[in-house]
Amino acid sequence: MNEDTSIKEKINVGINVSLVLNKFKNALSKLERVVGSRSTLPILNNILIKVHKGGVELLATDLEVGIKFNLGGKVEKEGSITIPGRTLINLVDNLYGDTIQLSSKNNILTLISGDSKANINGMPADEFPVIPEVEVGKKVTLDTQVFKSMLSQVEFSASSEESRPILTGVYMISGNGSLTLVATDSYRLSETVIKNGLGEEFNVVIPVKTLQEVRRMADEDASFELVVGENQVMFVFKDAKLVSRIIEGDYPNYKQIIPSKSSTIAELDVQEFIDNLKTAHIFSVEGSHSVKLNVKPEGLVEITSESSQLGNFSAKLKAEVKGEGGEISFNARYLLDGLNSFETPRCTLGIESRSNPGVLKPSNVDGRVYIVMPLKQ
Amino acid sequence: MNEDTSIKEKINVGINVSLVLNKFKNALSKLERVVGSRSTLPILNNILIKVHKGGVELLATDLEVGIKFNLGGKVEKEGSITIPGRTLINLVDNLYGDTIQLSSKNNILTLISGDSKANINGMPADEFPVIPEVEVGKKVTLDTQVFKSMLSQVEFSASSEESRPILTGVYMISGNGSLTLVATDSYRLSETVIKNGLGEEFNVVIPVKTLQEVRRMADEDASFELVVGENQVMFVFKDAKLVSRIIEGDYPNYKQIIPSKSSTIAELDVQEFIDNLKTAHIFSVEGSHSVKLNVKPEGLVEITSESSQLGNFSAKLKAEVKGEGGEISFNARYLLDGLNSFETPRCTLGIESRSNPGVLKPSNVDGRVYIVMPLKQ
Repeated sequence: MNEDTSIKEKINVGINVSLVLNKFKNALSKLERVVGSRSTLPILNNILIKVHKGGVELLATDLEVGIKFNLGGKVEKEGSITIPGRTLINLVDNLYGDTIQLSSKNNILTLISGDSKANINGMPADEFPVIPEVEVGKKVTLDTQVFKSMLSQVEFSASSEESRPILTGVYMISGNGSLTLVATDSYRLSETVIKNGLGEEFNVVIPVKTLQEVRRMADEDASFELVVGENQVMFVFKDAKLVSRIIEGDYPNYKQIIPSKSSTIAELDVQEFIDNLKTAHIFSVEGSHSVKLNVKPEGLVEITSESSQLGNFSAKLKAEVKGEGGEISFNARYLLDGLNSFETPRCTLGIESRSNPGVLKPSNVDGRVYIVMPLKQ
Repeated sequence: MNEDTSIKEKINVGINVSLVLNKFKNALSKLERVVGSRSTLPILNNILIKVHKGGVELLATDLEVGIKFNLGGKVEKEGSITIPGRTLINLVDNLYGDTIQLSSKNNILTLISGDSKANINGMPADEFPVIPEVEVGKKVTLDTQVFKSMLSQVEFSASSEESRPILTGVYMISGNGSLTLVATDSYRLSETVIKNGLGEEFNVVIPVKTLQEVRRMADEDASFELVVGENQVMFVFKDAKLVSRIIEGDYPNYKQIIPSKSSTIAELDVQEFIDNLKTAHIFSVEGSHSVKLNVKPEGLVEITSESSQLGNFSAKLKAEVKGEGGEISFNARYLLDGLNSFETPRCTLGIESRSNPGVLKPSNVDGRVYIVMPLKQ
């Protein structure tokens, strides 16, 4: 069997294009989490390959997020085909060589790279859903590093429960030269603000999952563009576009739950605080995750926790305390989530009473606040 | 409340000892996998702390494997207590400081380290099972690195099915100045032999789980001692002893299934072989994991696989071939397991017929062989 001649003969219908293998690999890896594996709509398990004059488009969607890559390539024949995404991704991930040739006939995609050849059973392209681009909208350019950093400061506070969909997103507010990101599950809230000098005014609630994909997509670009349309947002990267639904509805008026002042403020070492909360959590993990903080004006914060079954724990942490001090209980996990998002060596904890929310802030950083609701003692 | 005085007053019954925190942490981390978390015998979820004149003993057992650490310490009061292992391990892992003080009263263990203090509810020590040491047996000293390397060359071939218990262990044969390790699940077999100059003659089947613990325990010692007793083996480390049951029964006469010769031998690049088997496996993963190898005397090995649902794959690998060549099918996972255990850039594949086992060996290495049963085509 002489593969080379027989392959060339076959390619008389369908697509035919050669492209750089590494670019193809990279694009497929970015599509991985959007491609379904057991979708009830089988076409969503597929990747659409569209060959046009300028090169190759790769598309995947889960109907909430759609991603479209645009890769260059040496085009012999235009056309399109859809292919089971997992199979394609796993296959191409293990191939090597400089270029890969894609050709198709009768809905079978043939991939040739080096001395390897695979045929994958595909489906006609016309069943694949359209991923509509956002043509009209407000546009801002975002710095990738800044955006990734802001996102990791808030995303963990979003809710994972679908009962209040609006809380499963990140609230993004642009205007007056600043950009604000907020997330809350109603038990705790993260807000981060930067001055970016952009005048474009909009506010929009974007699903956390979308933003996590944006983080992955943005990896190689220094900046990217966000276009906020009527019902959708679009993120524009060098080689790709990501289109996502917006979460409909009014975001809660979160500003009103951020305490305007705290009568007691303690400044602590972040890592020491984290370590001792983790230890305290061992004894509260079975119940409410409750740990008690006792802020003492003489300059310490005592952390205690107790389990009737396991035992109890107490630790004294040095702190700079302003105010009268006081005792308050929190869910240890929520405190830890907030502290783990701080990049500073020290932080402040503000408390007002047993029933008012606690306020955590990284020391000497503007624009960051983390609010935690107290637990009843 | 002045903790320091009240603690000192309390310690009038039970143990009291101070020890180096890091040594305590390290020992606990080694006990982690032997301590039960949901054992039907609750005492097996515990760690036994025994304070004697010379220091502290820490013991844990799952009745198959028992581990006993012997740590130095400043002993104030001898005695013993058992404590829920997970709670103790999690707690101590998060503590810092140089030393930790352990004291007990009324079956409550108090741990003090720096400004942290915990009380853990324990149980009386007398319920804890005895871990008998192997007093009489054949002794050999094993080099840690050599042993770990030999173990990783064979352990993956052992069976995980309890239907034939003897195959869930690693067969260890010592005598005539060499040490042999063998494992098989009857579908494939690994053998590794080293000349270690030791004359002690024994053969014993040791559970894979035991040997995996031995690997973790041996981490800090250059060598350790193995004592083979009547029904148990004991591994002796600097600070610890591990006692394990032996798997009873006769190990199969494995030598007879290792082919004495192969009429066709192909030498290949290991990494290229691995990569292409992985790719071929994508198309066979749903069924038998079957890949077909076609060894061609002109100097190549063709790998092919096919799935009626997904598609098919073929790759040609350059090889140095001796003999007539031939075609044979294997389970791709078994080939990959063997190849992944090779540390050499090249390997040889020996085949005799479609129904005889294949023989994989790392090139230019003595004492290693990996046998794989063929699949029917």
